[in-house]
Amino acid sequence: MSPTLAARGDIAGAKSASGRIAAVYSEVQTSRIDYELPLPSVLRSSFKIVDGPASSAAGNPGEIAKLFPNLFGQPSAKLVPSESDALQPEKNLKIGVVLSGGQAPGGHNVICGIFDYLQEHAKGSTLYGFRGGPAGIMKCKYVELNTEYIYPYRNQGGFDMICSGRDKIETPEQFKQAEETALKLDLDGLLVIGGDDSNTNACLLAENFRGKNLKTQVIGCPKTIDGDLKSKEVPASFGFDTACKIYSEMIGNVMVDARSTGKYYHFVRLMGRAASHITLECALQTHPNITIIGEEVAAKKLTLKNVTDYIVDVICKRAKLGYNYGVILIPEGLIDFIPEVQHLIAELNEILAQDVVDEGGLWKKKLTNQSLQLFDLLPQAIQEQLMLERDPHGNVQVAKIETEKMLIQMAETELEKRKQEGAYKAQFKGQSHFFGYEGRCGLPTNFDSSYCYALGYAAGALLQGGKTGLISSVGNLAAPVEEWTVGGTALTSLMDVERRHGKFKPVIKKAMVELDGSPFKKFASMREKWAVTNCYISPGPIQFHGPSSNAVNHTLLLELGAQA
Amino acid sequence: MSPTLAARGDIAGAKSASGRIAAVYSEVQTSRIDYELPLPSVLRSSFKIVDGPASSAAGNPGEIAKLFPNLFGQPSAKLVPSESDALQPEKNLKIGVVLSGGQAPGGHNVICGIFDYLQEHAKGSTLYGFRGGPAGIMKCKYVELNTEYIYPYRNQGGFDMICSGRDKIETPEQFKQAEETALKLDLDGLLVIGGDDSNTNACLLAENFRGKNLKTQVIGCPKTIDGDLKSKEVPASFGFDTACKIYSEMIGNVMVDARSTGKYYHFVRLMGRAASHITLECALQTHPNITIIGEEVAAKKLTLKNVTDYIVDVICKRAKLGYNYGVILIPEGLIDFIPEVQHLIAELNEILAQDVVDEGGLWKKKLTNQSLQLFDLLPQAIQEQLMLERDPHGNVQVAKIETEKMLIQMAETELEKRKQEGAYKAQFKGQSHFFGYEGRCGLPTNFDSSYCYALGYAAGALLQGGKTGLISSVGNLAAPVEEWTVGGTALTSLMDVERRHGKFKPVIKKAMVELDGSPFKKFASMREKWAVTNCYISPGPIQFHGPSSNAVNHTLLLELGAQA
Repeated sequence: MSPTLAARGDIAGAKSASGRIAAVYSEVQTSRIDYELPLPSVLRSSFKIVDGPASSAAGNPGEIAKLFPNLFGQPSAKLVPSESDALQPEKNLKIGVVLSGGQAPGGHNVICGIFDYLQEHAKGSTLYGFRGGPAGIMKCKYVELNTEYIYPYRNQGGFDMICSGRDKIETPEQFKQAEETALKLDLDGLLVIGGDDSNTNACLLAENFRGKNLKTQVIGCPKTIDGDLKSKEVPASFGFDTACKIYSEMIGNVMVDARSTGKYYHFVRLMGRAASHITLECALQTHPNITIIGEEVAAKKLTLKNVTDYIVDVICKRAKLGYNYGVILIPEGLIDFIPEVQHLIAELNEILAQDVVDEGGLWKKKLTNQSLQLFDLLPQAIQEQLMLERDPHGNVQVAKIETEKMLIQMAETELEKRKQEGAYKAQFKGQSHFFGYEGRCGLPTNFDSSYCYALGYAAGALLQGGKTGLISSVGNLAAPVEEWTVGGTALTSLMDVERRHGKFKPVIKKAMVELDGSPFKKFASMREKWAVTNCYISPGPIQFHGPSSNAVNHTLLLELGAQA
Repeated sequence: MSPTLAARGDIAGAKSASGRIAAVYSEVQTSRIDYELPLPSVLRSSFKIVDGPASSAAGNPGEIAKLFPNLFGQPSAKLVPSESDALQPEKNLKIGVVLSGGQAPGGHNVICGIFDYLQEHAKGSTLYGFRGGPAGIMKCKYVELNTEYIYPYRNQGGFDMICSGRDKIETPEQFKQAEETALKLDLDGLLVIGGDDSNTNACLLAENFRGKNLKTQVIGCPKTIDGDLKSKEVPASFGFDTACKIYSEMIGNVMVDARSTGKYYHFVRLMGRAASHITLECALQTHPNITIIGEEVAAKKLTLKNVTDYIVDVICKRAKLGYNYGVILIPEGLIDFIPEVQHLIAELNEILAQDVVDEGGLWKKKLTNQSLQLFDLLPQAIQEQLMLERDPHGNVQVAKIETEKMLIQMAETELEKRKQEGAYKAQFKGQSHFFGYEGRCGLPTNFDSSYCYALGYAAGALLQGGKTGLISSVGNLAAPVEEWTVGGTALTSLMDVERRHGKFKPVIKKAMVELDGSPFKKFASMREKWAVTNCYISPGPIQFHGPSSNAVNHTLLLELGAQA
């Protein structure tokens, strides 16, 4: 029995009678199952698909055109009201769906959305759930999803309905396996729910199927709590809203504790390696004293010492005001944004691969001056971690570095120095936190529940409408759900190329925090005030009823111009 | 400006107009301020105080009688409906209130409760809030609380209205300072909101004031998220309900993640040093695969190796079923419950106080055989922590040991051994979590909001009724709020003595997890099933509206016999 099967089995066993669900579901989980989801009004009556103008690419259109000869240039699509249903209502469809990459709240609702679409618009259709991510496609491991099967997962967190995986369909053999599955199951379409890489992969699959004259169409869906898959047409990736609200609940609680206790600095590291959207959003929700945004650190080419000094400067300023407590947010990927750290790690990887490290420290002479200085600046525990913990390729494990603890130790050292210089007179006590796994599988907010359901429902329409190589796109998200727009965006239009191993590879560029974007500018305009006063906001637990239950995150509202 | 003042100032600045509150409060916080609290029906119309029979002590009544000559034996009190208000309605009272010890959700509501009582039953009275805990009494540092002042704190988490502190009023000089404050402010009464120590202290103060013929009465109030201050008459300490629900929300999220990902064991350490009530309650709410209860470890005299083996046995059993993931709960105080760890630490303190530790490890020869074996069993990082991190008295800092990380490393080592023996074939990956500060200052649940409000309101009645040396007691908590009983329990009746430095000291004994109590028995009857199947329950975020919003924690319901 695989974990996937077993996990499903546990809940599936519960679904046969509502009494059984009560046995393994909390009251809140149970109440969410029957939560009635609003649908954008265009999806509630007859609609047709209208194509936009021919599209291009985000960069290097010539190369993208070569990589996607069958798909490049295709228009994006929009669903508009129609007098009669213009799609092919008689035809039964065979559709597959797959979850790819890390969990994000709302994934189950995407599946429920496409399932309900097929039930309502293409009765008699079949929906296959590929198990354990893209590997499930390649190995043709699937389950047929029906009403009973998906019922207990409605509006629930997690990806356990069919589970996910991190495999990629990349090599010619893997594409061949995917083709075989498509043929074997006679698939009309495939919905790939994933992040930037997975959607790039979806587009390659779509191109490949089209090139081989297979009927299987492929539609993507934007998923990632990190919030780094977005564009003008795809205003948000799902899961970001819920994850940020869960982290902000915890941060708000810690803030009230900090203010009540009056003696701790809480260093909170937040999930999000590649981009700092989560940290920025949590800052906008909670108003911490200090927030480090990786993109700013990179743009300003800050060193670790600069970051430490910035933190310590604020701590000293606050001490003079009588505040010896505070809350500091740090993105998980911080050290990836610091160029000198990258240099040090590259040098260490080189040295450790070739040499035995001598106790006397002679090996250090192989470091460049800059790297040696940085290494000596690091707390001993981090130095040891860098030397000892290596991945199977012998590389330093950057991801394992507990940045929040490292910064606490570095702040301690610097504050001790300033104390001796007479510039700091208070006591510093740091507390560390890491919020990560707690936010990936929470019950989706009303926003993520509705957004995902619409994304899945729209994907059904796009597949029935014969579309391929599009990413499901729901817009106008600052308005009530009824007014949301629905369509699909050409995946190739989001792409650029990167040169890897001498070849051009298509990529959907990760959306980083833009330093001239509204969310960062709002934050930047407030942070000095937040640093020295205590404007803490405690968002409290996510509510599913009442006035706050339909609030949308600040990042999205600011980007849409719906918040000043 | 002290942090206390400043923290208050920040919110106080917001209270003058509701528009200002919106600026520093989240929507949920704002909506909670005006939440209308239900009151037990006895408190809603005229009532009188009826005394019970003479009381004794929890142990050694002879010694308690000697320590409390003025208070010992006094009856507990009960509020019952009356035709007319039998208390002294004309008299204006001067009352002080103080928060003592660690934060617990609901503390503000106790203050709101006594404030509203005085407004409604002794109009013109004055309520002083002593700042920063018992030190505020001794230094006569206070603020006069009025309607405007307390408004923004209604149903809010934290202790920041007047802040708390950990000082004790113990020495003759300190008692003298407290007397001076009582006289200076002409105090009729004092409400001490705190844990077991603080309530013992409250009783000593009451005894002292009575002995000196001061009019100042003292009433206690049961506070602690740890849940270890309770008895038949005081069925719960406030804050436990909220804290456990916040931790359980996080645990539930992590469980769904574990099941979705299928490859991590999450080791979750939960706040609660002295007793394991929080861990037990979270287990009852979420159904983890493994839960370690400190009191059971102590009762069975388990070694660290036993605990590790138990964990590893379950991991191996689950591997055979195809589950290579799971969730494990560990109480913060675990190692305090393991006798051999206590021995090792005592020996280390002795050795480290006298000797220089030599690199060669000769110092180890001074350890007893048992302690040496245990020391060698510990992961290297923990060994180093034990040797290097010392408190100002030179003692090993047990509280700093990250038990969850230690157990992950010990499980890794043991699983590696079993792998070589062929008894385990899977991959083990541990993830560590510590949930502590996140739960102490959350928005109180509806239960804690109402419970605290009733506790404070009752304290007002007891003080107006001339009572002293009682702890505010609200009972029948499994029933709707209207039916809750209200009264005060003689603090001396909860006491026993302990011998410290050759003298008898009065103590309210901490309520530990009883291995023959209903909550533990319920857990024990389920844990084998939970170990090998996945009965995870995800409680989701605390709701303030809807069916689940008034749910009471399992521990309390089981102890009251209101749940099977």
